[in-house]
Amino acid sequence: MTWTAYLDAHQSRFIAELMDFIAIPSVSADPAHGADMVRAAEWVAGRLTAAGLDHARVIATKGHPVVVADWLHAGPDRPTVLIYGHFDVQPPEPLEAWTSPPFVPEIRDGRVYGRGASDDKGGLMTPILACEALLAQGALPVNVKFFVEGEEEIGSPSIPDAVRALAHELAADMVFSADGLQWTPDQPQILEALKGIVKLELVVKGPRADQHSGLYGAGIANPAMALAQILASLKSTDGTITVAGFYDDVIDLTPEDRAAIAAIPHDETAWLAETGAPAAVGEPFYTTRERLWARPTIDINGLTSGWQGAGSKTVLPAEARAKITCRLVPVQTPEGVHRRIADHVAAHCPPGVTVETRLIPGGADPLILPRGHNAGAVAESVLTEVYGRAPYRARVGGSIPILSTFRDVLGLHAVVLGFSHDDENLHAPDEFFRLKAFRRGQEVYARLLERLGA
Amino acid sequence: MTWTAYLDAHQSRFIAELMDFIAIPSVSADPAHGADMVRAAEWVAGRLTAAGLDHARVIATKGHPVVVADWLHAGPDRPTVLIYGHFDVQPPEPLEAWTSPPFVPEIRDGRVYGRGASDDKGGLMTPILACEALLAQGALPVNVKFFVEGEEEIGSPSIPDAVRALAHELAADMVFSADGLQWTPDQPQILEALKGIVKLELVVKGPRADQHSGLYGAGIANPAMALAQILASLKSTDGTITVAGFYDDVIDLTPEDRAAIAAIPHDETAWLAETGAPAAVGEPFYTTRERLWARPTIDINGLTSGWQGAGSKTVLPAEARAKITCRLVPVQTPEGVHRRIADHVAAHCPPGVTVETRLIPGGADPLILPRGHNAGAVAESVLTEVYGRAPYRARVGGSIPILSTFRDVLGLHAVVLGFSHDDENLHAPDEFFRLKAFRRGQEVYARLLERLGA
Repeated sequence: MTWTAYLDAHQSRFIAELMDFIAIPSVSADPAHGADMVRAAEWVAGRLTAAGLDHARVIATKGHPVVVADWLHAGPDRPTVLIYGHFDVQPPEPLEAWTSPPFVPEIRDGRVYGRGASDDKGGLMTPILACEALLAQGALPVNVKFFVEGEEEIGSPSIPDAVRALAHELAADMVFSADGLQWTPDQPQILEALKGIVKLELVVKGPRADQHSGLYGAGIANPAMALAQILASLKSTDGTITVAGFYDDVIDLTPEDRAAIAAIPHDETAWLAETGAPAAVGEPFYTTRERLWARPTIDINGLTSGWQGAGSKTVLPAEARAKITCRLVPVQTPEGVHRRIADHVAAHCPPGVTVETRLIPGGADPLILPRGHNAGAVAESVLTEVYGRAPYRARVGGSIPILSTFRDVLGLHAVVLGFSHDDENLHAPDEFFRLKAFRRGQEVYARLLERLGA
Repeated sequence: MTWTAYLDAHQSRFIAELMDFIAIPSVSADPAHGADMVRAAEWVAGRLTAAGLDHARVIATKGHPVVVADWLHAGPDRPTVLIYGHFDVQPPEPLEAWTSPPFVPEIRDGRVYGRGASDDKGGLMTPILACEALLAQGALPVNVKFFVEGEEEIGSPSIPDAVRALAHELAADMVFSADGLQWTPDQPQILEALKGIVKLELVVKGPRADQHSGLYGAGIANPAMALAQILASLKSTDGTITVAGFYDDVIDLTPEDRAAIAAIPHDETAWLAETGAPAAVGEPFYTTRERLWARPTIDINGLTSGWQGAGSKTVLPAEARAKITCRLVPVQTPEGVHRRIADHVAAHCPPGVTVETRLIPGGADPLILPRGHNAGAVAESVLTEVYGRAPYRARVGGSIPILSTFRDVLGLHAVVLGFSHDDENLHAPDEFFRLKAFRRGQEVYARLLERLGA
């Protein structure tokens, strides 16, 4: 039986197994689901073993466990392929917005609905099932390793240490992420670049406790106003970041880059309507997509100070805080941007308060996935065959810190090869995964491993 | 028996009664204390009756009840004096910071400790006890009315309506507030001016829900950054308010005003140490005390937006809010300042967001208490006799909205005549009231009523 026939013959079992997997509420953000996280990890290890992989096991970390497995019988002249995915899911709230309950998966119109269906339980299963179909014929064409984590949705805090500890065991020639998107069900994509990230918190302090705004307001500085003045000094209202040196390490887009970005369709009206924002705005002299894909940002993620309840409380707050993230592009680094912002903030602190720029753990370098790259070229040709058209070379404004970890610890540039789509309510109610994409993902991974072993 | 002898003879009973009054946890901010608010109001009405006043009764409002009473037998050729105080107290938290429990009053070193001892249960009792001592001799020298509220600590939201409804019943020739401060136990003061207040909330909105800062941060405006830019446009870092027209209605201090302010001792180092702030800062060309007493302010009381928990959440928030209060000086008005700020905010809204300037109820006009004023002159001479030195003519940066209500509804300028001191932890743990000040306040009110009836 060919692997294609095997996939067809077993597809309804695979779908039932995916539904069992979705039914485990592996919400990494919620400590109440600690036991479910272990159950999901064990489910993955069991499924890898059932597919025919060796040494599948759950390994504890400082946070949620990881799962590893391998199949290393293709011989030393064949490449070793590391495959990544995650078994944790976003919290399901608001529950009342779901058509069917998030952890009682249901199939409607060729889609399986449930939390994690698309991100990333469906995606993670595609390479496992491809391995099963190939192993049903006797062997894999390449050596394969799996590394599956349970902290992706909370920023993978324990994962860099886990990858470092397992570095020898995870050594490979290339790495594919089964967590990823295709452009549309008809149009494949290859991800060329992701932004890096640095996370900061500004803490402005004034008096030792909240003061009466009438008795003290004209006499001492207001930390919330000082914070607003510092934040406003970071960015002009036209969208240009005004931190000294912020753009020094930014490699500007070449005319070729800009042409490549412009070649990919972008419906700005539809895109804006998704957000509900009144207008697309940002750094002048760049198109919206150029900014989204290839320009660095500074965003305030949260503000907190003083009285936030109903009505008014006439305090002059003791302190004010802002959480900030910057998305980085080559060759900015989290350390360099942190230092430049800290220097700028210190230089722009108004009198009468103190300010501190604190680094929040979880930074990542920007990533350009090089084109020369064999793994990427093979993935591109497989996608072209399966979809009947060449993938878009896309970029993304988000960050996947684990890919930096793979690069830094394992020396590998990842290929993001997942089969979700951005309309699948990935972090929202009624998350779903297309069963056609599920089947197609299995096929892409089987062909890919075959091609890499040829 | 003279009224002085009466006060001396009954002082230990009065102290015991004050302790009973403090033991009622009449916390106006906490809905759990609704029944205690009624109990405290009834206690006040009972105490007014026991002192010999007529018609003492509790009157419901839309919020907490008020208490009124009168004694109108001095005849139409004698003035009618309205006396104001409040029976509600601040929340007692943090409880663990109290030496003795807040509602189990205790005497230590000639001071009674407990929540409300100084603000304003001790103060409110002083004129009631003065009336009792005078009535023990047969009659009051003037007609007296009492108006006692239970919402002072929450901004008196129901009180303007209550005063309007009772306007006929409260009609008087002068009004004294038994809620107030003396400069020190040895130095009396007469309050010449209070600032007005206007309360606003700025609400900046962008996308319809929080967005992923990586996927959208470079494409649409960040409402928290827009709010920071708007707020920073309200005030320069040198302390000057930069809202167009903000100072138009401000009557500047005359050289005589400045000399009068400078004549009153001010230890800036000690004052600053009270706050813990690193420096005194504010509008240039004015001394700290001139700013505190006589210059308008704009203060941020609270900021809220996006993620405020631990660590980082990479959202681009859907909205950002700031609570603001301005303290006003003559002849600014809450309406005028609201309008100017709303215009300024609208004009300084960056692209890609919307902003709204909402008025929070509870504004008050600035008050100058005129010097010509008989009630004030009499109070001044009584304070001079009792303390052995002339009162300082002080101003205050705070606002007492009820005084505007008395002026607007009853046509009366209040004299603030209370016997608390600003070191008595008025809104903090270990609030206390000096028993010497308690006794002295009774004497001042008895002398005052005598003098006004002469």
